[in-house]
Amino acid sequence: MIYSRFDRLNASLRTSDLDAVILNPGPTLTYISGLHFHLMERPVVFLFAKDQDPAIVLPELELQKVVSLPYKLQVFSYPENPAEWDAAFRKAVQALGLEGKRIGVEPRQLRLLEFRHVKNGAPEAEYPDASDVLSGLRLKKDQAEVEAMRRAVKIAQDALEATIPFIKIGMTEQELSSELVVQLLRHGSQPEMPFAPIVSSGPNSANPHASPTERKLQAGDLLVVDWGATADGYISDLTRTLAVGEVDAEYEKIHKIVQDANAAGRAASKPGVPCANVDRAAREVIEKSGYGAYFTHRTGHGIGMEGHEEPYMRGDNMQLLEPGMAFTVEPGIYLPGRNGVRIEDNVVITDTGVDVLSDMPREIRVVG
Amino acid sequence: MIYSRFDRLNASLRTSDLDAVILNPGPTLTYISGLHFHLMERPVVFLFAKDQDPAIVLPELELQKVVSLPYKLQVFSYPENPAEWDAAFRKAVQALGLEGKRIGVEPRQLRLLEFRHVKNGAPEAEYPDASDVLSGLRLKKDQAEVEAMRRAVKIAQDALEATIPFIKIGMTEQELSSELVVQLLRHGSQPEMPFAPIVSSGPNSANPHASPTERKLQAGDLLVVDWGATADGYISDLTRTLAVGEVDAEYEKIHKIVQDANAAGRAASKPGVPCANVDRAAREVIEKSGYGAYFTHRTGHGIGMEGHEEPYMRGDNMQLLEPGMAFTVEPGIYLPGRNGVRIEDNVVITDTGVDVLSDMPREIRVVG
Repeated sequence: MIYSRFDRLNASLRTSDLDAVILNPGPTLTYISGLHFHLMERPVVFLFAKDQDPAIVLPELELQKVVSLPYKLQVFSYPENPAEWDAAFRKAVQALGLEGKRIGVEPRQLRLLEFRHVKNGAPEAEYPDASDVLSGLRLKKDQAEVEAMRRAVKIAQDALEATIPFIKIGMTEQELSSELVVQLLRHGSQPEMPFAPIVSSGPNSANPHASPTERKLQAGDLLVVDWGATADGYISDLTRTLAVGEVDAEYEKIHKIVQDANAAGRAASKPGVPCANVDRAAREVIEKSGYGAYFTHRTGHGIGMEGHEEPYMRGDNMQLLEPGMAFTVEPGIYLPGRNGVRIEDNVVITDTGVDVLSDMPREIRVVG
Repeated sequence: MIYSRFDRLNASLRTSDLDAVILNPGPTLTYISGLHFHLMERPVVFLFAKDQDPAIVLPELELQKVVSLPYKLQVFSYPENPAEWDAAFRKAVQALGLEGKRIGVEPRQLRLLEFRHVKNGAPEAEYPDASDVLSGLRLKKDQAEVEAMRRAVKIAQDALEATIPFIKIGMTEQELSSELVVQLLRHGSQPEMPFAPIVSSGPNSANPHASPTERKLQAGDLLVVDWGATADGYISDLTRTLAVGEVDAEYEKIHKIVQDANAAGRAASKPGVPCANVDRAAREVIEKSGYGAYFTHRTGHGIGMEGHEEPYMRGDNMQLLEPGMAFTVEPGIYLPGRNGVRIEDNVVITDTGVDVLSDMPREIRVVG
């Protein structure tokens, strides 16, 4: 166990009630092992048991990925025929002596596909939720991780600046989204984007999770752009709300309220205070303005290798902020059937306060 | 139940031993319901029980997506606090009377996250694998689906043609991959690509599932490009292998063998024959040439809304091809540590034979 992230995982297992964890393709597997697999119809599982060399079960055609690793790995491969997959899983589980043990899982990532193959190999084992242990490992970003996120923010901001001159009344949300992706790639984002940009206009902007449609931009629309880039496997996740031509006075007003709420959320972000404080600070601004009922989601979520990870800025989350934690601050106001506003920044807690990675102007900006 | 795909699912349930199915965000949910959700840390589950109106459990902030649907849907929403999610699932499960019943699942798609919430609501139910029932619904493409795939193929081919002039010795695989994505978008692909293009050169091309690296293209490399586009929610998935300058005579030879194997696989694709025949036809060409040991994967997989779906072109798959089935034909030869070749086309079985959607030249082509 010379690989330092193995040591940290092993130390976490020693202080937990878990004997092992299993990981399928996704950010935690990549974070822990340095290996990258696509989530596909052929199951890949990385098994890590306390005080042992880890093991992996994978299809034969992926064997190239596990040669010349900087650590010892027990490899169990299977051929194309699914009838033979269980046997490979059974061997791996037996090699690590996992039957009857407590094997931690990531319910947000692990599919029944991988779970059932492992369980067929160790039917008497327990499979408790290990999300806290695993997300704990990834929770505090080191300097290299923060710098990757800073690059991802810069790429995203530069890409939106380059896209804004293309925005014209009559273009569709989907056209604008495509142009933004082009600019993200031109500015250096890795091709595996954190998510497809949300471009939502007019009434669509009142849906916080809209997908871009064929709707054409119209004068008087608010235009929510929620986008991000990937750099060295780390992501950014930003939102700005633009005005297509002149907009209703109420829309300018809610934009200013959200801007103030965003500033309040960032100002409340510092070490030693609960996540709830960030949510409360932002929410209070919106509630005092009388629009509290229209801020329908939490104020933020952690970011790093994933778009959504711990810690979550929810009113009921008393987890304390610590240096290295990275998250979004993204209050919004959504007037159903009319228009919506969201302004989202990416921040990292420092020893003394907060490092706001994003600095693109937040003021309402007229385009089109 | 006026929505026609509900009628088909209901008919399938009536002839199966299942009482219901549950679906999380992904292609089957979109196919059945027309709804589109991202897979995220907040669980969304669509529940369909025999002879009943379907139900959905989703976060409050997604409620906008289920207003004004063309069918009746029982909606159960939950607030941000995860402690309250189980209650919403329990209500949905009770409304459909699912406790103790046989609830089919999609193990390749369903995560433990969604599964455990449903199971907490119906702990005595059984959860058999419903993949066959569900993929059966999506297996035979109708005309509109085939036309969408044809558009996705055309976009992909046009994009690679537009990218080829950019290919130069010294550019990295990642740079080439980014340029290809730019061209895919410029040519009209939806921003949610089926997968990030594989661009693998020289020794990397000997890994069938390589991710693009910082490796620079060198004279004498084979260059595998495996890419696709999305049109109206349907995808293409193609591969061509290019030569960077003049390549080793053996590489030209294996390219020609794979080209012949691809042609044999396409020629064997017709209604009424088992999927295995397509695999065997392609594999036989490579085996006869003496490179059989270096063709390490099956010959193809189904395509449609997903990059990998049924039917699979494997030597052991005796499933009969039927009109409307769409799949890839993609034999390859991979010489470990040296170079690799793969040539992949997209085809649809017709009443009388096969419709090859892709027609980009397959001959080895010198670039750089």
